[in-house]
Amino acid sequence: MPAESIPRATKEWRVEGQKGFDCLQLNADAPIPELGDTECLVRWHCVSLNYRDLLVTKGKYLFGSKDHVVPGSDGAGEVVAVGPKVTRFQPGNRVMTLLHQGHLSGALTPTTISTTGVGGTIDGCLREFGAFNEQGLVSIPDSLDFAQASTLPCAAITAWNALYGLESKSLKPGDTVLTQGTGGVSLFALQFAKAAGAYCISTTSSESKAQILRDLGADHIINYREDPDWGTSARALTPYGNGVSHIVEIGGPNTLAQSLKAIKIEGVISIIGFLGGAVGKGAPSFLDVLGNVCTVRGILAGSRQQMEDMNQAIEANKVKPFVDEKIWDFKDIKEAMTHMWDQKHVGKVVVKVCDE
Amino acid sequence: MPAESIPRATKEWRVEGQKGFDCLQLNADAPIPELGDTECLVRWHCVSLNYRDLLVTKGKYLFGSKDHVVPGSDGAGEVVAVGPKVTRFQPGNRVMTLLHQGHLSGALTPTTISTTGVGGTIDGCLREFGAFNEQGLVSIPDSLDFAQASTLPCAAITAWNALYGLESKSLKPGDTVLTQGTGGVSLFALQFAKAAGAYCISTTSSESKAQILRDLGADHIINYREDPDWGTSARALTPYGNGVSHIVEIGGPNTLAQSLKAIKIEGVISIIGFLGGAVGKGAPSFLDVLGNVCTVRGILAGSRQQMEDMNQAIEANKVKPFVDEKIWDFKDIKEAMTHMWDQKHVGKVVVKVCDE
Amino acid sequence: MPAESIPRATKEWRVEGQKGFDCLQLNADAPIPELGDTECLVRWHCVSLNYRDLLVTKGKYLFGSKDHVVPGSDGAGEVVAVGPKVTRFQPGNRVMTLLHQGHLSGALTPTTISTTGVGGTIDGCLREFGAFNEQGLVSIPDSLDFAQASTLPCAAITAWNALYGLESKSLKPGDTVLTQGTGGVSLFALQFAKAAGAYCISTTSSESKAQILRDLGADHIINYREDPDWGTSARALTPYGNGVSHIVEIGGPNTLAQSLKAIKIEGVISIIGFLGGAVGKGAPSFLDVLGNVCTVRGILAGSRQQMEDMNQAIEANKVKPFVDEKIWDFKDIKEAMTHMWDQKHVGKVVVKVCDE
Amino acid sequence: MPAESIPRATKEWRVEGQKGFDCLQLNADAPIPELGDTECLVRWHCVSLNYRDLLVTKGKYLFGSKDHVVPGSDGAGEVVAVGPKVTRFQPGNRVMTLLHQGHLSGALTPTTISTTGVGGTIDGCLREFGAFNEQGLVSIPDSLDFAQASTLPCAAITAWNALYGLESKSLKPGDTVLTQGTGGVSLFALQFAKAAGAYCISTTSSESKAQILRDLGADHIINYREDPDWGTSARALTPYGNGVSHIVEIGGPNTLAQSLKAIKIEGVISIIGFLGGAVGKGAPSFLDVLGNVCTVRGILAGSRQQMEDMNQAIEANKVKPFVDEKIWDFKDIKEAMTHMWDQKHVGKVVVKVCDE
Repeated sequence: MPAESIPRATKEWRVEGQKGFDCLQLNADAPIPELGDTECLVRWHCVSLNYRDLLVTKGKYLFGSKDHVVPGSDGAGEVVAVGPKVTRFQPGNRVMTLLHQGHLSGALTPTTISTTGVGGTIDGCLREFGAFNEQGLVSIPDSLDFAQASTLPCAAITAWNALYGLESKSLKPGDTVLTQGTGGVSLFALQFAKAAGAYCISTTSSESKAQILRDLGADHIINYREDPDWGTSARALTPYGNGVSHIVEIGGPNTLAQSLKAIKIEGVISIIGFLGGAVGKGAPSFLDVLGNVCTVRGILAGSRQQMEDMNQAIEANKVKPFVDEKIWDFKDIKEAMTHMWDQKHVGKVVVKVCDE
Repeated sequence: MPAESIPRATKEWRVEGQKGFDCLQLNADAPIPELGDTECLVRWHCVSLNYRDLLVTKGKYLFGSKDHVVPGSDGAGEVVAVGPKVTRFQPGNRVMTLLHQGHLSGALTPTTISTTGVGGTIDGCLREFGAFNEQGLVSIPDSLDFAQASTLPCAAITAWNALYGLESKSLKPGDTVLTQGTGGVSLFALQFAKAAGAYCISTTSSESKAQILRDLGADHIINYREDPDWGTSARALTPYGNGVSHIVEIGGPNTLAQSLKAIKIEGVISIIGFLGGAVGKGAPSFLDVLGNVCTVRGILAGSRQQMEDMNQAIEANKVKPFVDEKIWDFKDIKEAMTHMWDQKHVGKVVVKVCDE
Repeated sequence: MPAESIPRATKEWRVEGQKGFDCLQLNADAPIPELGDTECLVRWHCVSLNYRDLLVTKGKYLFGSKDHVVPGSDGAGEVVAVGPKVTRFQPGNRVMTLLHQGHLSGALTPTTISTTGVGGTIDGCLREFGAFNEQGLVSIPDSLDFAQASTLPCAAITAWNALYGLESKSLKPGDTVLTQGTGGVSLFALQFAKAAGAYCISTTSSESKAQILRDLGADHIINYREDPDWGTSARALTPYGNGVSHIVEIGGPNTLAQSLKAIKIEGVISIIGFLGGAVGKGAPSFLDVLGNVCTVRGILAGSRQQMEDMNQAIEANKVKPFVDEKIWDFKDIKEAMTHMWDQKHVGKVVVKVCDE
Repeated sequence: MPAESIPRATKEWRVEGQKGFDCLQLNADAPIPELGDTECLVRWHCVSLNYRDLLVTKGKYLFGSKDHVVPGSDGAGEVVAVGPKVTRFQPGNRVMTLLHQGHLSGALTPTTISTTGVGGTIDGCLREFGAFNEQGLVSIPDSLDFAQASTLPCAAITAWNALYGLESKSLKPGDTVLTQGTGGVSLFALQFAKAAGAYCISTTSSESKAQILRDLGADHIINYREDPDWGTSARALTPYGNGVSHIVEIGGPNTLAQSLKAIKIEGVISIIGFLGGAVGKGAPSFLDVLGNVCTVRGILAGSRQQMEDMNQAIEANKVKPFVDEKIWDFKDIKEAMTHMWDQKHVGKVVVKVCDE
């Protein structure tokens, strides 16, 4: 894009009031500030939604949100211009967001969480054009289109973090992973587990969803409605009955009690529920863990370095994110959020921001 | 010890009935079976007591105990004879027990826990002579006497495991450790932290105990009676207020809630309470962890390999286990257990099995 | 096998003189000593050969060998009787050898290398029956037959160690592995890499061998005769040209110089050549590494714990060891060794010790 | 510093011709470009010299240098102004350089090495004022003054990387470190080893230097002139003669052969010689490693994340960098470099850029 054609205005959604989806306001002609010298101007093509985004519109997101923000943490698009000191990207590069712009590697800090969350405390991707510091963008794997790539910044990296984030307990071929349901993180965890030569046991509540899991390669599927003691059943399916090595725990009301039955000694349970919305009641207390020699981690997305590792795995194994059949138009964002809130989706909900 | 002088009988205590300390019965002349070809006959000099031992006499130990067992998991003594295929030891070597005889390295297995616990499902050290497979014995650091060495098999290795057991989060110099109270594990954790160039924040309830902590090198001491919100205070004492990297959590009724306030993002809380006896009520549920990006581990002693690493650290830094002033006679085992149950001890309770 | 039918004699080969294959002597009726109380009597079905075995007959094995030894480190067979204190196995279990009987986990020690090598300093598997301490045996994956399983104790575990032995640099899906030629270790490394979702670049010198590599899943094959600068070519095949993450280096005369061209910054080169026989001249000096920020490891088989992890991966991914078409009879051991020494084999050379 | 008083000019040295120290030219009044929006303007107080800096003036630095560069990679100073989008620092903060400005965490890349080295391809610290991207600056530990802090960016981080950079082989208390001589990296390695509760064996060639090592806490000192087979001697000093766990290898002509004698199985030799200048001839080839099951790493400084970890260790243990008695004036840079080239220094050579 020649310098003279760099846009000066953009369409954008903003949260105005944090009272729910209806507080979203469309601005058709918002000004684009001058590009900082280490910033890239990105034209967003697709945005995938997370419960996090829905909670931000309601003012209920716990890890940092503000009013007037452009929502949408997970964007995939194209760099159209770069500031004079940018070294990581060039116009034409395909990029996606790093959820916490300051989380380049290693551990998060409280400040990084509370001040650098895209679509929370800094403006997100539900706009055609946005400027981002080059450090907060990540290249898109060649094998993915924009819709697919837009699902990575929250859901995929969380699954990756669950399996590889605790380095000395990284998933190895032959280990056993347990996933719960057909949410975005769970499906990615299943896909990564299979790409990595691990077994995967997946729970679900219906035959139609079981088929999705089967298609993605699940070795065993347990219907948790028919088998309420599924934790014990899952353990029985592992080699020597020793239990599951990695559980991606979505934090539902009864899931953790079962996960504690399924987990292997020294296994890892990664709790990712807080990326979702409703967190259940009646979960076991920590005292229930006392009899379990295992590790329980709370995790929150992942770092840029982890995303880069994950992208290599996606590319090498041609992992295709599972996107909901219906792709939503930019103008229909409220409907898309309502659809997701009502749990009518299967796979990631994607909004198309602009035409190619 | 020449072959002809290998003893054929030993004094020993046995649990008879699992109804409490009074069910302990002394046998002055128990036969010693023929030595297996990979076994060592050990003359136990000292045994240190753990809550575990007390619970075994009551039939309340959850990780495997049986009636008629010789109690006493933590022994230090001298090899007096070896079977014909023994390669690891010679008569005259000073040795201590590996708590779970089958836990040579890596992760525990359910079978190892339930079938190889010394003084639980296999006969322990409250006897003058006992035969042990050579794999289940560990050399004693030169710098320790038998009384000191007898405190390592449960308490010290648990503290070491808390700080070094999750390999990719091993303690580094400059990290901050938090310990709770003056129990055996907590004091070892403090000593290891200081040996390793880490900061240590220790909680306690009295000035006299604070002095012990101070003498062992604690950088900061918090009186948790005077400061019920000590988790917040501990966090404030860490560099940049980022929180504590390693917490050795004893699993009391209110401690975990405070630990969650003190812990650093990606920090490690190791729950060791189940080695103790009473486990508190009212602990936070897992849901309370959802807002904490941290790792919570349940741990259960440690492997032989970990003990060997720990022993090097003890020797290099001349770490001296903190032994209670009063050393108990073998015949007074019931009094020693009562004393410990009533929490009248400060430091590890040690029983002298035989004279040098 | 009922106690009364436990054999008291066995056929066996022994090295007598360490002057080459001709010094091997067959004893048709060697006595079997009484079974130790922690020993298993194993009936060996198959033995795979390694250069190590050939060197032992020549007295040229550097890591511990003795005259009069029963050669054959890599055996697969069936437990037919167990000593009274054995807990890990029962008659009927299918087992294979742990190369260094004392290498249960963690690092080797000089003593373990020099005193516990099967078929080197302790009697090996080229005999129908042999007694082994239960600690030195490993269960065979269900998916393998005896011929296949006999290839694991040296070759497979070395490949596994190269990819997973340096824990903080374990292979992840999307990483790139480079293997050299079609020797046993190289083929296993290729198979493990593909099972784990990694890329694999393999070098070879002929189209017929290239086809084997292709069949096992190699992503790229380089003919090193046609492309002497194959290290540079391999690097060019990696994402962004950043280089290969794991190289399984067989230590040939010119290979290392190329490997240093191919390796990624912070990548790992595992040198396994000393398991083979001839080691080349003219290799680069360490000074040549000074310009390479990478890690070079010498490795020597692996521990029992690593074998157990590997076995899970083999089972989960149905990895089938590549066995040479011709299976040799027990009586033809000298011919088998000559065949291998002359490099007429493709895939692992296996000797059948007894009929099923 | 109020905006109106931000300087517009600075004194600076530049390499003009890359023909040696004499090609350094002083510019008393060089313009300071406008501050970028993510840049900090730093007033450098002290610069420590490395062989790297000397080689840059000679055009012989292999990892990226250019003519006309301001030399001096290792600076310590004070932030005097910040661009509008800077978040990490404020005026008044004390900072030092990150050697490779792009090496925030994880592994280096070729591009990071060749394009982001301070005082190599980007302007360094031998000037009163310089603008740096906020990502390339690191806070100074409170316990250090500017002269001391200026020694960290190359020498200290290299030592830290040697001991903690290979995560699964991080130094633990009780391990044994071997250092060679009294160069900057070696002294830091000794100091870190002692802070971490490890043993340290140090080699040297004179009694006066031995006293320095003794004062810094070395447990054993070997005079390598008197004991040419010092590798064997060092091994003999370790527990059970098992060898040294971490060797900081400076890459001299004969040192590596001795290091290979001293190293423990699975131990780590980190080669840091290429930060120095002259690299010896006659070093062993890789074939000599074949008999050593150990890991050899080439390392090149370290990442920002490693520096932050190191700084915590320095602060917690009050590690005081060993600075040469004579502090040089800014104007005498050529004399300082000559002094260092002639190896007349003991401890780090520091140049004072400006008065406090």
